[in-house]
Amino acid sequence: MPAKPPSETGRYAYEGLDRVIHEKARLGILTSLLTHAAGLLFSDLKSLCALTDGNLSRHLQILQEAGLVEVWKGFKGKRPQTLCRITAAGRARFREYLNILEHVIADALPEEGEAPSPGRPAAGWSPA
Amino acid sequence: MPAKPPSETGRYAYEGLDRVIHEKARLGILTSLLTHAAGLLFSDLKSLCALTDGNLSRHLQILQEAGLVEVWKGFKGKRPQTLCRITAAGRARFREYLNILEHVIADALPEEGEAPSPGRPAAGWSPA
Repeated sequence: MPAKPPSETGRYAYEGLDRVIHEKARLGILTSLLTHAAGLLFSDLKSLCALTDGNLSRHLQILQEAGLVEVWKGFKGKRPQTLCRITAAGRARFREYLNILEHVIADALPEEGEAPSPGRPAAGWSPA
Repeated sequence: MPAKPPSETGRYAYEGLDRVIHEKARLGILTSLLTHAAGLLFSDLKSLCALTDGNLSRHLQILQEAGLVEVWKGFKGKRPQTLCRITAAGRARFREYLNILEHVIADALPEEGEAPSPGRPAAGWSPA
């Protein structure tokens, strides 16, 4: 039998899970940059996140346009280099996001010990 | 200045973050169903996740095709009803996903106290 009707509309909507941050590759990029406050070279970030040049560029552009990341150009000798850093705003928004993520885990984990419902739900239900 | 080159390739790739589960709406649906082991009626699930009929149907189909959710049809009087439940496999995969999510948070949160880098990274860098 289904549980009693839930009372809280939008209880599991997680509105605060910003899609710009939530995307899997960008989540990795932001975590990398949050944990390397001085910034990371494009090549190192690419390696840490296991992304291709094209994918990293695309995601960096989205993060830059959202004001979460800044990109700097420089040279090592004659070789151009790119430095990526999380912005102060990016840091603040990423922390808000992480708070929501902790709520998701807190919502899900209390049911850890509960047994899966076996078989059919009850008489009168048939598989869709 | 950029940090020293990171040694761990793919350290922040989070390969285990299954995209079927990670999508924001589906994350809410799975959390709802995990915490309501007997299942939820379509209408209640819709309300809990603040989704439209069309969006919930679409995401349920994806979750059902991935074997994470099962959908049952029944009647209340003459009115058709739909019951949604997480499967045993869905429960197991969702818990694996939650473990990775905990790793993401553990990776990001130790830097909580670190100050943002102010201004330009160093001489020789210019904004991209």
